[in-house]
Formats: sequence, structure tokens, C-alpha cells
Amino acid sequence: MPLSMYDASVPVYTQMLGALDRILAKAEAHAEARKIDQKVLAQVRLFPDMLPLASQVRIACDTAKLGVARITGLEAPKFEDTEQTLAELRERIAKTLAFIGGVPRDKVDGQEDRDVVVPLRDRKLEFKGKEFLLRWSLPNFFFHVTTAYGLLRHNGLEIGKSDYLGRN
Amino acid sequence: MPLSMYDASVPVYTQMLGALDRILAKAEAHAEARKIDQKVLAQVRLFPDMLPLASQVRIACDTAKLGVARITGLEAPKFEDTEQTLAELRERIAKTLAFIGGVPRDKVDGQEDRDVVVPLRDRKLEFKGKEFLLRWSLPNFFFHVTTAYGLLRHNGLEIGKSDYLGRN
Repeated sequence: MPLSMYDASVPVYTQMLGALDRILAKAEAHAEARKIDQKVLAQVRLFPDMLPLASQVRIACDTAKLGVARITGLEAPKFEDTEQTLAELRERIAKTLAFIGGVPRDKVDGQEDRDVVVPLRDRKLEFKGKEFLLRWSLPNFFFHVTTAYGLLRHNGLEIGKSDYLGRN
Repeated sequence: MPLSMYDASVPVYTQMLGALDRILAKAEAHAEARKIDQKVLAQVRLFPDMLPLASQVRIACDTAKLGVARITGLEAPKFEDTEQTLAELRERIAKTLAFIGGVPRDKVDGQEDRDVVVPLRDRKLEFKGKEFLLRWSLPNFFFHVTTAYGLLRHNGLEIGKSDYLGRN
């Protein structure tokens, strides 16, 4: 089967968010065992002006959610950025997976040339659907999933590349 | 134009490796200005049993190189893992970009169903070309590029998401 827009989006986001959820479950157990406050763990950063773990997870979710929404023209569910615990962050992943998992393949396939506008703080970026997915959404998505992994690894969680990939 | 195997591989690897090269150029200037030994910077890690910056860059290059080689059946150039400075790591990126940039679109397109075998330390993984690219090569590639970025950010290099994305 030829590669399609659906192949390159929904299953990829789903694989990585599922893996991130299982990593956060391990982080919950790690925090419990080491008597680390989950709210502290959710705020760790690699540098003072980088975003903390909670934001990395939120943005990973939002990149997936908005990736699918912008490619299809469907409206994405809104999530408040109020999560403070790992359990709450895992709920956001679950809600994201529920949304993208419910989008039918035929809404995503064939959207290579859809006009996509990404609003930034000070300007707008314009893409075609294919370029948006490959050159913007996926690079951003993997950035936040990997940074969440790196933050937990840096803070002593015993995970490896197979956890990140969601494979055994 | 429908999404193709080439679209989802060569231009993506190229965008991100070009960005990584420019990040390493900034790291060279940073090391020079702060009198940091480049060889020390190349060995920074997020945790003692994670791979250092030099390895993250090498593996990012190799993931791109082997991604294209395995999808096409072409032989990838061999690089010795001897780089010790940022300049040497940038040379490896240049050699990787030269290889993947020379692979014609029609060698990559249409390879969705090619059998791809990935040898791991203790076993082999088997994929079809499409699954290999989306579920293995790209997740691994972005992991190492992002981790290289995170390591430099963690060590005080003043870069932002636009450097990672290779966009202004």
C-alpha cells in the first residue's frame, strides 16, 4: 500500500503517546518508591528557561491533536493546562488518544494539499498539509516526547530506548 | 502530489541534520567564547549511563544514512566513530548529507513494501519499508537530534526551538 497521510500521522502519534503514557506510569511508581513529590517531578527542567516536564507532555499531546485537526479540518478538543500530577498528565494523553483514534482514515488521507495555517505568537506560518505534517508537526511532536523522556532519564528514572519507542 | 516515501525521508533528515549542523556551529562559538574544551562538550551526558553528545550526533547521522540505505537497498558509506571535536562531528553530518542528498527520488519512492531487516545486538527486527521509516527510523532519528539539542541546552548553549527546526 502506498504511504498515506494517515499512515504518517495517526499511528505515529498513537505509538509514541502510548509509549509516553507507559513511561509516565513508570515515573509514578518511581516517585512513589523514592518518596518524590509528583508535583515536583512534573516541574523538572533541563535549563531554567526551558519548559518543565508537565509542559513537554502537554505540548506533545497538543501537537498530535492539532496535527490531526489541522490536516482534517476537524475541531480539536480543548484541554486546560492545569495538570499537576503525572496521573493528570496521563489523563491528557488518554483524551488525546481518544480524539485522534476516533478520526477516520478517509478524513486524513488525501489531505496533502490542504492549506494549513499555524498561528505563532507574532505571526502565522502557512503550509500545505503534507509539508505541515512532515516538516512541522512531526519534528515538534518528537521533540516534546523525547524531551519528556530525557527529563525523566536525567532525574533517575530507569528507562531505555525501547520504552521511548513503545516496543519490547 | 501524494505523500511519498522520499517526501517522508530524505527532505526530513536533511532539514534536521542541517539544523543540527548549525546548532553545532553555535556550540563551537560558545565553547570558544567560554573557553570550554570542545572535547569535554562532546562528552556531556544527561545521565551517566546515557550516550554522550558525540554519540547522539553520530547516531542521528547513522539513522538517516541507514534509513535511506535500507529503504533503497543502496550501500551506505561507513564512518569510523572517531570524532572528538564539534568540527569533526559537523564533518560527519556533511558526509551524511552528501550521501542522502545524492540518492535519487525514484530510488526511494515506491519502496513501501520492501523487506527491511534491522540487526540489533541480540536479535533482528523485520519491517516493511513504510513501517520501518515511520515507526522505527524517524522516531529514532528525532530522538538523537532532540537529545543532542537538549544536551547543549542543558550545558548553557543559547538556542531555541527555531534552531532545532531549522527555520527562522
